[in-house]
Amino acid sequence: MSSISPVNADVLKQAQQRIQQDLLTALAAFSIPEPLKAAVHHAVMLGGKRVRPALCYATASLKPNHNFAAVRRAAVAVELIHCYSLAHDDLPCMDNDLLRRGQPTCHVVFGEDTALLAGDILQSMAFEILGSRLFDDQAQGTDAAIVLKQMQILATASSKMVCGQVLDLQAEGKQVDQTELENIHRNKTGALIQAAIMMGAVTVFTGTDPAIPKLRQFGQTIGLAFQVQDDILDITASTETLGKTAGKDEQVQKSTYPALMGLEKAQAYAQNLHDQAFEALAYFGDQAQELTAISHFLLARKS
Amino acid sequence: MSSISPVNADVLKQAQQRIQQDLLTALAAFSIPEPLKAAVHHAVMLGGKRVRPALCYATASLKPNHNFAAVRRAAVAVELIHCYSLAHDDLPCMDNDLLRRGQPTCHVVFGEDTALLAGDILQSMAFEILGSRLFDDQAQGTDAAIVLKQMQILATASSKMVCGQVLDLQAEGKQVDQTELENIHRNKTGALIQAAIMMGAVTVFTGTDPAIPKLRQFGQTIGLAFQVQDDILDITASTETLGKTAGKDEQVQKSTYPALMGLEKAQAYAQNLHDQAFEALAYFGDQAQELTAISHFLLARKS
Repeated sequence: MSSISPVNADVLKQAQQRIQQDLLTALAAFSIPEPLKAAVHHAVMLGGKRVRPALCYATASLKPNHNFAAVRRAAVAVELIHCYSLAHDDLPCMDNDLLRRGQPTCHVVFGEDTALLAGDILQSMAFEILGSRLFDDQAQGTDAAIVLKQMQILATASSKMVCGQVLDLQAEGKQVDQTELENIHRNKTGALIQAAIMMGAVTVFTGTDPAIPKLRQFGQTIGLAFQVQDDILDITASTETLGKTAGKDEQVQKSTYPALMGLEKAQAYAQNLHDQAFEALAYFGDQAQELTAISHFLLARKS
Repeated sequence: MSSISPVNADVLKQAQQRIQQDLLTALAAFSIPEPLKAAVHHAVMLGGKRVRPALCYATASLKPNHNFAAVRRAAVAVELIHCYSLAHDDLPCMDNDLLRRGQPTCHVVFGEDTALLAGDILQSMAFEILGSRLFDDQAQGTDAAIVLKQMQILATASSKMVCGQVLDLQAEGKQVDQTELENIHRNKTGALIQAAIMMGAVTVFTGTDPAIPKLRQFGQTIGLAFQVQDDILDITASTETLGKTAGKDEQVQKSTYPALMGLEKAQAYAQNLHDQAFEALAYFGDQAQELTAISHFLLARKS
């Protein structure tokens, strides 16, 4: 099993600092009335691993001299979609979660109506940012065809994410098999993680570049691996480490990989998925250091 | 005061039939698990005046031989955003409305969780459709620059709509002046109506065409006029005619134009806004028949 080497942690830490700054810049570009502004800020800035934007950056870094502004916009947009989904997920009519990343959730602080609207506007803000000139300080302009591809990827993944939510709700208290569970997670979590990678990919590679299918394969496996690891951590980690209520899956009789195949087999499955992900990256050789480091970090993470 | 002539009603009826068919085609293009599929269908297909898509079509018809597929996608997309906003608006944590267009609202039929998710996916579906090849039967292809403009307009209007909701909630039970009330409505209702027009406009006119500012002016005034008329109807129409609970604004002490300036002055103001809208359309001469007919219909409507 991999461990978090200082190098791997550093790569993610650098990406996190960059995205933190870019998220702040992006939020400041919007004129939003209070208390919605504070709720949006709360939903976006209370931390998190920033895995999706980090993957977007790292994918784009496979090719030097890319349109960095378009990558930064994509990274911000995908994280805003993720944050909207969390704000809505935590609502009383959904998971009714009071704690997220060690902080009170959006609806606890701002009320249900404002938390709902914060999620709603975060989704449209994501598409606004994609189509904007944000970060475009060299006035290099935006290739409309690239933005269009980014939008198609993000919108499709956002729809899939909602479908995954529904499949997940439908499966509660039911016995599902591995195929059904994977279908849930490929939609619910996998689609947006893969989108983060593919938005980076289409920004720097042309449609016919053999890098594209390799990155799609990487995205599919790492997205699923992320969810398997999440399920494992829900059992093995404490609420304190996790920053959200641990053991919640078992409590609501959610189907998880450890419940389905046992903890040890689930851990082996996560490792196996990561191995597949690294195989896809092998195509890029040394260029994929950043993606490799983030993948190692994801497998070894404790929260 | 204008009355609904058969010609005006026919124009809207034709547009409504077209959008109804296009909405069905669009929904059928998505693979969505139940019960979300049924909830999305309920939210979209339970009727409504289809004012926004009708305005989008009519604007594009100002110029013959336009990219009709791109206009149809824009019309569907703007209506899906409108339908998402209604599904979320009706939720218990918002207006808690049980009746919409004479039918039980989405959360009454499908539960709060599914109604929330239906709204969420409708928003991403709107952007998916914009970036798709739907209706593109002549394989004429999509000009990415036009789609990008459509997306920018729709995303910005969607964000403004949410801001308007917040301003509206903040104003409940408070005395607001006309400037504040207009600010609420320009965001809450006006932005999306204007977006419907501008999405049609950018599809058929180049950025430097003098038609663009004229249509922006038309959109601004007709959007506000629509809301003033809505406020008036909330007082003058019955629940039966309206298809939603009448008198609701007064009940929750919402600031409205009749409350602010009295019913008669509000009616005169609506007429005045329409006159301004028609002035903007004068630039297009006979070409603007369809937009004129829809505008007349909106002013004379009883629900």
